[in-house]
Amino acid sequence: MNFPSKFVENAVEQLSKLPGIGRKSALRLVLHMLKQKKSSVEDFGNAFIELINNINYCSVCYSICSSKICEVCTNPKRDKTTICVVEDIRVMIAIENTMQYNGVYHILGGLISPIDGISPSDIRIKELIDRIQDNDITEIIFAVSTTMEGDTTNYYLFKILSKYDIKISSIAKGIAIGDELEYTDEITLATAISSRMPYNE
Amino acid sequence: MNFPSKFVENAVEQLSKLPGIGRKSALRLVLHMLKQKKSSVEDFGNAFIELINNINYCSVCYSICSSKICEVCTNPKRDKTTICVVEDIRVMIAIENTMQYNGVYHILGGLISPIDGISPSDIRIKELIDRIQDNDITEIIFAVSTTMEGDTTNYYLFKILSKYDIKISSIAKGIAIGDELEYTDEITLATAISSRMPYNE
Repeated sequence: MNFPSKFVENAVEQLSKLPGIGRKSALRLVLHMLKQKKSSVEDFGNAFIELINNINYCSVCYSICSSKICEVCTNPKRDKTTICVVEDIRVMIAIENTMQYNGVYHILGGLISPIDGISPSDIRIKELIDRIQDNDITEIIFAVSTTMEGDTTNYYLFKILSKYDIKISSIAKGIAIGDELEYTDEITLATAISSRMPYNE
Repeated sequence: MNFPSKFVENAVEQLSKLPGIGRKSALRLVLHMLKQKKSSVEDFGNAFIELINNINYCSVCYSICSSKICEVCTNPKRDKTTICVVEDIRVMIAIENTMQYNGVYHILGGLISPIDGISPSDIRIKELIDRIQDNDITEIIFAVSTTMEGDTTNYYLFKILSKYDIKISSIAKGIAIGDELEYTDEITLATAISSRMPYNE
């Protein structure tokens, strides 16, 4: 593709580096931007420069925050003895939005994936162990996607953490609320039957 | 969605303003960026600031260019008497890539679309007429998408331009090269039959 301007070419190049955006989509987005006000496009560009220059990771849970320690970890009302282990801040945001969890988090920053070359040392497992050793932690909850990588990570963490005197649990796997059973896949249904729970009114 | 940092929130906000990118995708893209080198993300942001501050529109054909007049319009080998009318520079780039067209272009900057509130005065039709009146133009080729908006624009332009002594044509409509006839939609097939061409070996 030959571009009529090197600035357009550069912007297309940058956008198409993002996952899921090809060069044709990138050009469509750049042309969309060119129809916007100059200040809007400058705000767009500046948002990313400010982002990368101001981003901080919480020194306790490694979530993204504006200060040294994140709002969850500094909140005196949160239960610091329960840690929910998640892949990235997207899961943390999702759990926070449920307003049902009062503990703190630990952001792994990825999942173990031998195919992608991500080994246990590439994610924040050592940091989690340090946190358990240095603090009074009573429960660890694994809240990791039910994929091959998630299961591998869960299993690895369980093996390592089982020597500590801590309650270890994983978020419940089963039928999603609102799902119709006849359309549920067999593995989920089998898991839901074998992990059946006492009936509560 | 509550974000843990206002810089992340701002970057997500900016990305999700782009057509086709929702807030969840935007957050995924922002987290992807945070895994990149600081300089790469700065380059990303700067690409758009440079784009909007350096962008120029060719004063002849209104395509995007780095100087006052674009490379096509200044190229002495191009046939300045033939103008190909296109919606935006994406079509111009696509036609240039075929390396089969030796004339110049006129970028309308949109198509007439009463539903979207785009009237003939919102696109560069006046500029096209001025160009025809001021220059020695012998042929106008409409290369506009075969949509309702494209057909409306073609018809409107034809009505206006028919009073000038200029050859007016439209790019051929028919079966795409490589298409199987049994899967071709009826309207295309009907158009292809009624616009049948003399057989050339």
